[in-house]
Parts: sequence; structure tokens; C-alpha cells
Amino acid sequence: MSGSTTGTLFTVTTWGESHGPGLGCVIDGCPAGLKLSEEDIQPWMDRRKPGGSPAATARKEADTIKILSGVFEGITTGTPIALMLENTDQHSKDYGDIAECFRPGHADFCFDRKFGIRDYRGGGRSSGRETAARVAAGAVAYKLLREFGMDICAYTKALGNIAIPDVSALSPDELRAAMVNPVGMPDSESAKKALALLEGAKAAMDSLGGAAHCHITGVPAGLGQPVFDKLDALLGKALFSIGAVKAVEIGEGIRASALRGSENNDECHMENGRPVFESNHAGGILGGISNGNDIELDVYFKPTPSIAQPQSTIDKNGNDRTIEIKGRHDPVIVPRALVVIEAMCALTLADALLINTASRLDSLKAVYSQNV
Amino acid sequence: MSGSTTGTLFTVTTWGESHGPGLGCVIDGCPAGLKLSEEDIQPWMDRRKPGGSPAATARKEADTIKILSGVFEGITTGTPIALMLENTDQHSKDYGDIAECFRPGHADFCFDRKFGIRDYRGGGRSSGRETAARVAAGAVAYKLLREFGMDICAYTKALGNIAIPDVSALSPDELRAAMVNPVGMPDSESAKKALALLEGAKAAMDSLGGAAHCHITGVPAGLGQPVFDKLDALLGKALFSIGAVKAVEIGEGIRASALRGSENNDECHMENGRPVFESNHAGGILGGISNGNDIELDVYFKPTPSIAQPQSTIDKNGNDRTIEIKGRHDPVIVPRALVVIEAMCALTLADALLINTASRLDSLKAVYSQNV
Amino acid sequence: MSGSTTGTLFTVTTWGESHGPGLGCVIDGCPAGLKLSEEDIQPWMDRRKPGGSPAATARKEADTIKILSGVFEGITTGTPIALMLENTDQHSKDYGDIAECFRPGHADFCFDRKFGIRDYRGGGRSSGRETAARVAAGAVAYKLLREFGMDICAYTKALGNIAIPDVSALSPDELRAAMVNPVGMPDSESAKKALALLEGAKAAMDSLGGAAHCHITGVPAGLGQPVFDKLDALLGKALFSIGAVKAVEIGEGIRASALRGSENNDECHMENGRPVFESNHAGGILGGISNGNDIELDVYFKPTPSIAQPQSTIDKNGNDRTIEIKGRHDPVIVPRALVVIEAMCALTLADALLINTASRLDSLKAVYSQNV
Amino acid sequence: MSGSTTGTLFTVTTWGESHGPGLGCVIDGCPAGLKLSEEDIQPWMDRRKPGGSPAATARKEADTIKILSGVFEGITTGTPIALMLENTDQHSKDYGDIAECFRPGHADFCFDRKFGIRDYRGGGRSSGRETAARVAAGAVAYKLLREFGMDICAYTKALGNIAIPDVSALSPDELRAAMVNPVGMPDSESAKKALALLEGAKAAMDSLGGAAHCHITGVPAGLGQPVFDKLDALLGKALFSIGAVKAVEIGEGIRASALRGSENNDECHMENGRPVFESNHAGGILGGISNGNDIELDVYFKPTPSIAQPQSTIDKNGNDRTIEIKGRHDPVIVPRALVVIEAMCALTLADALLINTASRLDSLKAVYSQNV
Repeated sequence: MSGSTTGTLFTVTTWGESHGPGLGCVIDGCPAGLKLSEEDIQPWMDRRKPGGSPAATARKEADTIKILSGVFEGITTGTPIALMLENTDQHSKDYGDIAECFRPGHADFCFDRKFGIRDYRGGGRSSGRETAARVAAGAVAYKLLREFGMDICAYTKALGNIAIPDVSALSPDELRAAMVNPVGMPDSESAKKALALLEGAKAAMDSLGGAAHCHITGVPAGLGQPVFDKLDALLGKALFSIGAVKAVEIGEGIRASALRGSENNDECHMENGRPVFESNHAGGILGGISNGNDIELDVYFKPTPSIAQPQSTIDKNGNDRTIEIKGRHDPVIVPRALVVIEAMCALTLADALLINTASRLDSLKAVYSQNV
Repeated sequence: MSGSTTGTLFTVTTWGESHGPGLGCVIDGCPAGLKLSEEDIQPWMDRRKPGGSPAATARKEADTIKILSGVFEGITTGTPIALMLENTDQHSKDYGDIAECFRPGHADFCFDRKFGIRDYRGGGRSSGRETAARVAAGAVAYKLLREFGMDICAYTKALGNIAIPDVSALSPDELRAAMVNPVGMPDSESAKKALALLEGAKAAMDSLGGAAHCHITGVPAGLGQPVFDKLDALLGKALFSIGAVKAVEIGEGIRASALRGSENNDECHMENGRPVFESNHAGGILGGISNGNDIELDVYFKPTPSIAQPQSTIDKNGNDRTIEIKGRHDPVIVPRALVVIEAMCALTLADALLINTASRLDSLKAVYSQNV
Repeated sequence: MSGSTTGTLFTVTTWGESHGPGLGCVIDGCPAGLKLSEEDIQPWMDRRKPGGSPAATARKEADTIKILSGVFEGITTGTPIALMLENTDQHSKDYGDIAECFRPGHADFCFDRKFGIRDYRGGGRSSGRETAARVAAGAVAYKLLREFGMDICAYTKALGNIAIPDVSALSPDELRAAMVNPVGMPDSESAKKALALLEGAKAAMDSLGGAAHCHITGVPAGLGQPVFDKLDALLGKALFSIGAVKAVEIGEGIRASALRGSENNDECHMENGRPVFESNHAGGILGGISNGNDIELDVYFKPTPSIAQPQSTIDKNGNDRTIEIKGRHDPVIVPRALVVIEAMCALTLADALLINTASRLDSLKAVYSQNV
Repeated sequence: MSGSTTGTLFTVTTWGESHGPGLGCVIDGCPAGLKLSEEDIQPWMDRRKPGGSPAATARKEADTIKILSGVFEGITTGTPIALMLENTDQHSKDYGDIAECFRPGHADFCFDRKFGIRDYRGGGRSSGRETAARVAAGAVAYKLLREFGMDICAYTKALGNIAIPDVSALSPDELRAAMVNPVGMPDSESAKKALALLEGAKAAMDSLGGAAHCHITGVPAGLGQPVFDKLDALLGKALFSIGAVKAVEIGEGIRASALRGSENNDECHMENGRPVFESNHAGGILGGISNGNDIELDVYFKPTPSIAQPQSTIDKNGNDRTIEIKGRHDPVIVPRALVVIEAMCALTLADALLINTASRLDSLKAVYSQNV
């Protein structure tokens, strides 16, 4: 239990370091009967992959995903799905000078204190590259959710002080169409400004923070468990497990704390035999359980800690040191993290979907009467 | 697994409804050898208990905690600690009119969809009263953490639009001394204004939201696990599992997203043979692992959804309805939630503390060489 | 995690010591919609309860079960079901002389080494009385299994050297009708001989071991998971978790190890459109998954370790001692353990039943298409 | 959660099918600081590997283990250790005729009912080849246990009706020296007879069952948890999770059920300041917790279900069929399962060792006072 497994029924275990032979994951609990091939997963890997974008590191990885088990003749069998990708473009020499030194804003010091040893090459297990394995798993979870009509889209809503206008009316498909730019903003004007800001930060040997929004549609009412495993608690955990995330909001988030009850409650009425909420301040979750509305999440990232400016730090022998981080690093984390956000939400929802099947006696009877 | 158990080694399972015979919890995994009595827990119950404060419901519960197992001659034995309190002041008749109707902003609709049945009396399992059991467990976890020099203090930092001045320099003891007012603000001027605001909201049959800050000191470096079980992810989950929480920030939180790397990184140097961070933008956690700095968390609550104004809603038979919520309710959630925040942080840290003992071969050897 | 929780979806946490105020359990994950009252559980408590039988301890407990949560208007709500019973007839003085001494064949020494402290009164947490809480939980699980046509019956197949004749043709109902005697043997002749043997052992200040068989009918094919969570592995764990169990057999058990493949394989053919196995050497489980046949288990118990004869032992200060165990003890464990066996099997199967609902995409679709 | 993960702190997740590209496992929670290389693991793979022995299948696999993560400069880092081996010698054509038919004594029928689809090539996930990944993980656990002076040796004690003489006085090293024969018996006379019996069974197109004993030394007192996670329950689960195991005994096992308390209790006295048990009927575990004595386990295997004789069965379309299983199969399972038994015991003990570090406040203090 060094924390690399998540989920109760739809479980994912990841492994791998930035500069080891590769990374991968094992999904245990994906239901049998789902069509699945590498073509379903590769586009997710490609979205996460560093490209030639000014918003991303210069590292180039093919990130070709391989399915090693759990799929037979294109269909999941219910047994563990192992996914793997190789590391090919490792410049370990770039990191040689940080073998001893703890980089400010990074996990180096903490890993050293916790484990007494760390794989310093590219951050080892604490590298953002670790998320590649999550993204692969998330692609499988997303494929499952699509069978139930769910969709997930995360986009950049702010980089530094450049924020996009309101796009809350857009569907996931419309958002995806609008965000084809290197910073993942569904607004081309904002994207241009953000890119300019980013170039300035890079030139100043500095980095930017930013914010993402995640919009999830088609979620059936009833997902999530009361008390500790509320759906918002599980999503919160999933999102805070992404490196550099410093805040998470659900629905109105912080704004709700300044509203009155009469302003924040979502009233409801029937329309065509179905309940319709007149607003969605709650962000689709009440009492920890989905209410059938869209789930709306905001995720805030700190600026990339790797910067080329000299910074004061210490080394593992307890000496004061000055460090300038060369390597290849994203000057901002958000754009490449969008697919990671989607992956973590997909994993969380897939698990909640499976767990919820056992909530009611009548659901169980529907399963067992069918199977006989 | 309806989500009422949390933790890996220091586990807590809670049970009970607002208007059933009582509530309780089972702590499984508290180390043997800790001095523990009801006197350690009762003050926590008393802090959570509704009093005569204008900031709280008029419901009166003795909330006398009983230890039913796991403690022998004043010392924990390592076996499950069962804690229980009785419900005594239940006005079930107050809730008779909401047996059919789903209250806006509450879990009623979601529970109905998930389970097909719900205990509507006082919100049943989704009542804020459920947190009494967590608080009892949290008091035990806190007692354990004190053995290792940790301390935790949560206070109200804002109610509606009334925010307190900066108190980040205060220690937990100083904060506790300063926050002896009905709204839990460590600033008497702000507290007065907040109380006035609250009276106005109550008069308007409305409610307020607000924000809390949690300050945790003495945390050893090394707690938390990489990847999915990062300490911030576990704290985030714990805090989002408290009803009405809509946002969580760690360290700089949202502010970090507008900073540059050179502004947000915490530089470090040696002082008297120990590492000293020159700032704490990170809030005590890097790469998901505690770095020895204070942990700083902000938690944002929506306004109490129970308001006496008429609101549109539906009933379980699919009819449009108007509801006015009478009952006895806190006009704001934050002040009574402070002890719940502390409890959830204590539970999370106690579990992380125990798990971390197995991280290193040399730690294991220290244990087993001692025991022989 | 001191090991008092079991299950993944249908989870049970027990608490309580032999001479504390009471014992109880929390069932988290029982599906909503099941009719449940104390009348469903009390008969199970009564079966476990020591009576005036020569096969049982003279301790007298009312063992009146109370449901404290999770049931509303006679129906489970899907939230935690807390069950509790009080300890009333405690003769703590009987155990005063073993406060320091470790009883041979008991957990005393091990608890002392593990925890450094133990509640010595009546064995504390390691007392057989702990199983009362499991039995209460098992009664709930059994009620759920009955909804799916499953039945479970455990009976005594041997006490000391007295073994019953073959009763494998009897149904659970027939077995229950036949085993109304103090030793739980479904054969009155054998029961008479066993009682005589037992009287002799008691007179000799000694105790007997024995064996039970558990016969489970109506199990749908498909329960259990491949690899580590095979249904036989989970049943094995559940049964070995009962104190004094020293061996477990499934189907042919040890006998299978002396058979040839051609003798042990269960051949199969179709009858009226359904598969019929021509034998059941496997005991209803193949590859860790139920095959729809009856599940057949044998469980072997060591003799009660508490005997009044003088025995050599040590005390917690490292002195050699001689001990004679007075107290009130069953001279044989099997008869009162039958209901514990049934409870542990019921818990295991209920959990497997729930988990299995998520195995197939078509099962999930049956649930979610129904709920909309 | 299709059951391919086991353990609480020292967790193992396995993946892979008999005829897919490979098999592997992820160990999450191995403490940092352990020396580990492929040379530690490969000998375990070689022991499990089918060779040219008359007791084993003719399939030939290099089974070269690769460490893909979690080890840096020859030392474990505390992060997930991914291990993998490739499948190279797959004769899928051999299995073409069983794509539709359910082999008697195999998991085929059950997988079909559970998942609706199965990878029939060589049994897919239910193949004995799956245990290769467990063995790799077990080798790592064993390396860890050796740091604490523990040792584990499993040997064949019976094949069909050929049983070895008593070897209980031999140490693991002596046993290993004595069992260098194709059937893993620590007695060359018995081995000769067993091989002759085996040749006869093969000639008759049949197979044999058998029994193994596992002898574990150096276990510290205190491992295992009370109630559900008793050490014997966890070992029982681990052993029953090995395919074809039909019975498990601990210590005296079934024999204990025929003894009297005065015969079965292990008396104790002090010798040189340490407790010495005068016998070990308990097999090293009392009340679910290790007592410091050797752990003694017996494991019974059914005969290999794959036999070349014609057998009646059905196919997935519900037709009666006759099947003769050609392929390449071990005529007896026990000899190659010995290393699997050791692996499962090692995994169970490693996890119990880690969990136990958090049992006592003084142990925790030993860890945290050391780390500062």
C-alpha cells in the first residue's frame, strides 16, 4: 500500500518511473463484455503526450499503448487488463545534477524523508509522467461510461491572469471542437493571449499556474455513497491526487459560501414526467450522491515548480545549495493535465457506477433473474 | 460498502440516523497502549453539540459519549473501540410533512433514487447529526496525534461577507483562546459583525454560508503515499465528505494558480542542522507527502439548505410541491462544523501515521528489534 | 485495521469483549429494500446462546439483539445496520486468577506479545463470545440470501471418535428437523453416544474436539472471483477465522488428494435444458467460482482449551506457573459453533453475490435500464 | 475487483493469461531499502518452470523475470515493483477443440456463467500459469522475510497413496537438501515409488492428487489480527486461492478434532529467559496470532483435471459432448505447486509483518523517534 491502487470494484494499480523501462497499469474489475482495443486508448495517450507545443516539454515519447491481458477477440473478459507503454526518450544526464539536491516545489525532499532513497532521474515516481498510466486506465473507464451515456470534458479556464469567457452552455462535443489550441482553452482569443503570456514567462525563466473546468454529462442519479465515500469526496480525492492541484471546487464552490440558502438551493419541478432542477449550484451532487444533473468541477494548479532561475535549497547531506533546473519541463501544467482530469473523473465514476449496482434489492434481482 | 468506513489501518465505521435510538462508531486499529477515557472525548462532543447559541439549532442533546469496548483499565487494547451516544431530543413530528417531499439542497431526492427508501426523519443518515460519530472517533485520533506532538485547530474565517483579518501567525493554542464566541472566529470584532449578519438572515428566513481554515502543526515529514493516496488527496476526500463542503484549498490554494513558479516555490536552507522552508505556499505537502511544515487548509461551506421560505420542489410520487422547512436548523453550518473538520483531519493523519511506519526497512527493524 | 472488518460490499465490523458492557456489529452495504426485524435475528442468537445443555457453558446471557440503525419501518435503507447485545451475566471474579497467567491453548500469550496489554476477563476480545456479533450479522446476510433461494445448514458430523452416518442426501430442512439434540447431530443414536462421551470427558476434567459439515443449497453459478478471491478461498478464510478451527475441506477435501482425475472430475450433461453434474466431488466450486451445485464444506475444531486439569504455563512476568482453569466453559466447541459456521458462510456468500453484480456489462445494463 | 489483488500494506496485483503476451504483477508497499535484483527472483521462477521431468508438462518457457520499476541502483524505493515475464511457447492450436466445450474439473463452465466470455486458450486466466506472477511476487516477499530471520519450505508429503516418512525434525535447509528429485519429496525412496506410480497414471491417461507440507521458521510472536484477519485465516485464504487445493490443515489439523484438551494444548515453560512450548499441536498460531513457534501447514490437491480419457461434458451452446483433453499437462499438481505455496505464505507473512508494526504505541514511537 504505497498508494498506487485506487477504486473498490473498478480498481486501477499503476507502476513506473519517469526514466525506468516503462510505465503501466492493471485495471482489475472492468466488467466483461466491453469492446476494447488499443485504438480506444491511444488517442488519450496522444492528448497527454508532450508535442511541439510551446505549452509543453520538449521530451518526445511515442507513448504507444499495449494491451497485455484481459481482452480476448476485442472484448473484455472481466479479468485484469494490463496496459503498458515504454519509455524511450530519456535524457538521464539532464538530471544528474539533481541527484543530491532537493528541487524547490518538488517531492524530492519528502520522498527522501519518507523512503530514505529516491529515484532522482526525472523525478522518478513523482514525475508527471506517472499520469500516463492513469490516462490509459481512464480511457478504458471512459469507454465503459459511454455505454451508459456519460461524457466528460475538461478544458483550461485560466492561465495566469488570462481567463476565458463563460462557456457553461457548451456541450462536451462543442467544447472539444472549440479547444483545438495548444493551451486547451475553448476560446481562441483567450488562447492567443495565454500563449503570449506563456512565452513571456518562459523567456523570464519562469512558469505559470492555471485552472481547469471539468464538465460531466449524462450521470445517472444515485452514484456515490453516503458519509465517507460521497461522490464529491471521491472526485475530490481523485483530483487532489494529480500533482500540482491546490484547490478543487464543486458546483458553485467557493462562491456558494457567500450565497444565502435561498440563492444557492436548486429548486425543482416536473417536466414531461421527469424532475428538472431549475439551477445547478450544487454541481450535480447532493448529500454526496449524484442527482442526475451535470457534474461541474473546477481544479486549480500551481505553477510548474521546475524553473531555470537560481533557487535556494538543500541537499540530502544537509548542505545549503543553489539550484537551476535545466531539463525539459512544461512551463504550465494545466493543458496537459486536462486529459488526466478526465481520466481521474472517469475512473471515479466507473467505480461508483459498479458499486451502485448493489444498493438495492430490486437491482440485484434484476441481475440474477436475468442471468438464470 | 455504503461508504461508512474510512481508513486503512486506523479505520472508523460510523452508524446511526438523526432520529433513531442513537449514533456510534467503531474504531478498529487504534494502537494498544494509549491512555483513553470518556473525558478525552466528551469535550469534542460538547463542542459539536447544539447549544443556545444564535448560530445553532435549538435541538438539545446531551450527547454523552460511552466507550463500549477496546479500553481496559484506561488503556487502549488494540481491539475495536466502540463509541456510542443516544438520541434523546427527537421531534419527529416536526418532520412529518417532509416524509413525501424532497427538500431543495438536501440529499432527499438522491437517497430516494439510490435506495428507493429513506428514513426521512430529520434527514436520517444524511443529517448533520451523523457527524457526531465522526467527532467521537476524531477525538481518539487526536489523542493519538498529541503523543507525537501534532496539533489541529479549525476556525471560522468568514461568514457570508464577513471575513476575519489575517491570523496566520497564531498557534493552535492562541487560536483556541481567541475564538471563544458563538461563531468560532478568532477575532471578536468580526464575530460581532457575523452574529449581526446571522440574526438578519434568520429574520429573513434565510441562511448563510461561510469558510473555515484548518491549521495543523507538528506533522512529521513523510506522511502520505505517492500517487492516489497523496496526503492532500486523503485530506481533500475527508473534508469533502463533510456535508455542505463545496471547495477545499491546500496552502495557497486558488491563489497559487495565479502565481509564477518563482513566487510559489518554497525555498529552503539549513538552520541549526535542520531544514527550514522560507515560506509555506505549499501548505505543508509536496508531491502528496508532508514536508514537516504546518498543514494549511481552507474549507468552504454552502449556506444551510433548510430555510423557512417557500421553495418549489417535487415529491416522491412525481408531483410539483411547495415546501417551507420548519424544524430546528443551524442558520449557518461553519461554526459547528469546525470540530468536524478537526476530526476528519485527525482521522486522516492518524491513518497516515500508522501506514508510514511500514515505508522503510529500517523502521521495521526498529520495531522488531525492540519487541524481541 | 485490527482485523474486525470483513467483506468488500457487504461489510461487517464487530466489536466487544466477553466482559465489557456488550457486543455488536455494524453491517455496511446491505442492499436497501430487505424486510428485516429483530425477529429475524433473535433465533440465531438463541441458537448460539449457552443453555442448560451438558454440551455448553453454564453462563447465561439473554442475548437480546437490538437493531440500532439502518432499518426504517421494517425495511433496510441501505445505510449501516448497527446491532447490539448487552453482557449481563459476567462473573469477572472467576477469571481473576488468570489476569497474569497465560492459559495453554488460548490467545493470552499472543495478545500479550502483540499488544503489550490484554483484557483478561473471560478472554476479552479473543473469547468465543465475540462470535455473537458475527452471528447477528450472519442472520441478516442469511435473510438476504433467502431472497435468492439459497439455504445453509451446518451440523455436527463428529464429536471425539463418535461420527454420524452419511446424511448427504438430506436437505437443509430435513437436517434441521433431525438435529434437535444438544450436540447438533442429525442422528439421534450418534447424539446419545456423543453426549455420553462428553459426560465422561467432563468428569475427567477434559474436553473434546469435533467436526462439522456445512451444506449450502441454491447457490447461483458465478459467485467468487478468479485468483486471490476465489469463493473457496473466501470461505476458507471465513471458517478459519472461527476460533479453534484447525482444518477446512471443500467437497472431497483430503479424499480428493488420493483419487485419480478420472475419479474426481465431475462429468456433466444437459437435462431439461439445464446442465446437470453427475457428481459433486468439487463441492460446488471450480476455479474459485460457484458452479451451481451445492457447496459442501467440512470444518474441524480442536478440543476446548479450557480444562480444569493442572497445566504448565508461564505468566506475563516470565515465571513458570501451574494453572487450573475453573470458569464456565463448553466442554466441546462444535455444537455452539454450528450457527457461527452458518453465519460466516452467509456473510461470505452475501458479499460474493453483491460483487458479482458488477461482473458483466449486460448485468449493469439490466440494473441501469431498470432504474431509469 | 475481479480478485487479482491481495494484501493490505504489502499488496500484490497479478495479471495475464496462459496464452497472452505475458504475465506479471505489481507489488505495492514493499518497504524501501531492501536489496533486490532479478537474481533474487529468477530461481523461484525456475523452480516453478516446467522442465523435462516426468512429473511436469512438456511446455517450455524461459520465464525470464524482468523488474520494470520500483528498484533503483539495486535497492527498493518503496514505490510499486512491477515484474513481468513473457509467454513464448504457446501452442494455441492444441486448445482449439476446447473453445466451445467445458472441460470437467476446470473453471471453464464457471467463467462462462460469470463473465459470458472466456479466453479459452490454455485456460486463459484460470490456467496454472497464472501462478508464475504470484511466485515472482512471493520471491520478493521472501527476501523481505529473510531480513527478519524467517524461512519457508514446502515439500511433497504424499502423491496418490505414496506418503513419505516423518521429516518434521528437519530444518528448511535440510529439507531443501533432501528434496532434490522431480516430485519434491524429501525422501528418495518415496520419490522413486511416487515416480513409478506417476508413470503408471500417465500410461493410463489419468492423473494423481497429492499433499504438501509447509514448514515456516523464525516467525516472531504477534503476527496476525484478532477476529476476521487471523493469521491462520489469511494463510487459509492464501492457500485455498491456489487452484486445485481442496483442504488445508494448520498444526494438528483434523487430528486435533479427535484429541482431548489435555492432549492438544501446548504447555509452556521458561528456558534461558524465553518461553518454550513443550509441543506444537497448534502449528504456531493461537487465537489467530503467531506464538513464535514454527508454523506448520498441510495442503491437499485434487488430481489434475486435464486427462486424455473421454469424459462427458457440455458445450456453451448447451449440447452434450465428449471430450479428450490433449494439450500438455502436469500429471500431478503438487511438485510444481510447492513454490506457489511458499510464495503465498511469504506474501501473507510479509503483509502481516508490516501491519503489525502499527499495533502498539511503543512501536510507533520507536519508528518516529528514530526518523527524526
